[in-house]
Amino acid sequence: MKILSGIQPSGRLHIGNYFGAMKQHLQLQDANDGFYFIAEYHALTSNPAPDTLRDYVFAVAADYLALGLNPEKTVFWRQTDVPEVVELMWLLSCVTPVGLMERCVSYKDKLSKGLSANHGLFTYPLLQAADILAFDSDLVPVGADQKQHIEVTCDIAQKFNHLYGETFKIPKEYIIDSVAVVPGIDGQKMSKSYDNTIEIFEPEKKMRKKVMKIKTDSAGVDEPKNPDTCSVFALLRLFASEEELKEWDKKYREGGMGYGDAKKRLAELMLEFFKPYREKREELDKDPAYIEKVLKDGAQKARAAASETLAKARHNIGIR
Amino acid sequence: MKILSGIQPSGRLHIGNYFGAMKQHLQLQDANDGFYFIAEYHALTSNPAPDTLRDYVFAVAADYLALGLNPEKTVFWRQTDVPEVVELMWLLSCVTPVGLMERCVSYKDKLSKGLSANHGLFTYPLLQAADILAFDSDLVPVGADQKQHIEVTCDIAQKFNHLYGETFKIPKEYIIDSVAVVPGIDGQKMSKSYDNTIEIFEPEKKMRKKVMKIKTDSAGVDEPKNPDTCSVFALLRLFASEEELKEWDKKYREGGMGYGDAKKRLAELMLEFFKPYREKREELDKDPAYIEKVLKDGAQKARAAASETLAKARHNIGIR
Repeated sequence: MKILSGIQPSGRLHIGNYFGAMKQHLQLQDANDGFYFIAEYHALTSNPAPDTLRDYVFAVAADYLALGLNPEKTVFWRQTDVPEVVELMWLLSCVTPVGLMERCVSYKDKLSKGLSANHGLFTYPLLQAADILAFDSDLVPVGADQKQHIEVTCDIAQKFNHLYGETFKIPKEYIIDSVAVVPGIDGQKMSKSYDNTIEIFEPEKKMRKKVMKIKTDSAGVDEPKNPDTCSVFALLRLFASEEELKEWDKKYREGGMGYGDAKKRLAELMLEFFKPYREKREELDKDPAYIEKVLKDGAQKARAAASETLAKARHNIGIR
Repeated sequence: MKILSGIQPSGRLHIGNYFGAMKQHLQLQDANDGFYFIAEYHALTSNPAPDTLRDYVFAVAADYLALGLNPEKTVFWRQTDVPEVVELMWLLSCVTPVGLMERCVSYKDKLSKGLSANHGLFTYPLLQAADILAFDSDLVPVGADQKQHIEVTCDIAQKFNHLYGETFKIPKEYIIDSVAVVPGIDGQKMSKSYDNTIEIFEPEKKMRKKVMKIKTDSAGVDEPKNPDTCSVFALLRLFASEEELKEWDKKYREGGMGYGDAKKRLAELMLEFFKPYREKREELDKDPAYIEKVLKDGAQKARAAASETLAKARHNIGIR
């Protein structure tokens, strides 16, 4: 199966990102032909400062490579090295009713918040459609919030095929079930917008400090505690073995354990889990030329694939 | 001055096209650096049949070359050979409020007629902006109906320059005053949508026949006639010398002249005027390879210019 995934270069990755989607994306590499790209064109819709964007693109490339993206198997590139998708987007936009864009939830959300949307934000489901169709994708693993955009992509592809002859493969969606809702240090869902994240690659000391700050109830050491409503326990679930988890469950319910102990152990397990990735990330930081080479090689393969689809679409629509 | 003009490949050219804008465009070549392109991407917004689009693109290229477009001096290309403009359009769209597009008259016109607009039609002022800015255009000769789009282009360019540093040259508009409203054979303004045109390159016999059909009032041969309200006379103005025109004016007012005589003379003058162009057009029809070469050479020059602007815009916005 050809599997496509766009990665937003939007800052440092946190544990919520990892267990929410990245881990599954990385697992999908093994049994599929992966096409993973850094979505720079999409990132422009939020008007990042130019230097920030450059930093984030490099960082997200290093992060993914450190966490196990395998460039020998998976095609990995910067979106802006394959401008064919933007041209394809124009061809698609000429068969897409304006109303279809207006109905997209992402845009309506912005409006309902009273924010003024730029035209890129309004149009980005069309760029997403071009991304998906350019690479003949079979599967597009997305969160439930992106389901509508895959449906839009299918609608547009079918309309184009109907008007101009068989051109695009119709993709299937693939909704990623979050393994668990990952709580942030304040107990809400971990998210950059809540400023409650624990980053995967932050310095050890800082990571420990953040873990120690996780909000709990005020039960004293001796009191029994409820693991099911505790953020520390929820995070332990992601890192501890089943046996160890059972022990913690017991300690919680019996009392006689302080939250501090659970937090200390959580930080240990977390650092242990990410250790190989953190080491790899450090190595990569010292070798930007390698990252550049991976992305350039990926772009070459991606461009060849996208050019083929674009040439077919151009011909079918009447461009030579 | 760098002067940019997009030519819609929308079918056979008629006399109204020629005197309404083409003649002025062609005259502008001499004192300026002309960048003239066949607007295929724009044409796609009306979903032409693919073979029709291909035919029209070839025909409009031949028409312009026959009518005096000088490929030694003016850069002349097919828009779809320079996809850089579509990428530039994406960068622009991320600094353009959706509201600015919604206010564009071309789109509101469609809506008010109850037609459903495709997204390409909604967005095309942005593609026009990219066309204009990609080539550092100084002047963009347009009809009054396109004035708003030039203003939109300036707004967007200024916003981009403000956000990301000096990137684009701000163009000036240049409204073409129609030399005369050219009447069609039914007396209304000559326009393909009224099916009242006389084409520049139609067969001689057909052209004469159409001229003979021009609608006049029912004044008999002996009666005096009013040249100021007569379509035949209005067309004579475009082709007859000043002296000859004075004579016709006299004949009209004195009576004793039939409309048939005026029409016959008009057809003569028309054929004489277009004779060199018609001959050149026949030559070109036999040499499609030459036309292809002109367009390819033009595309190479245009692409070099557009790439330079795009590279600057990409860098300034944060793409490497």
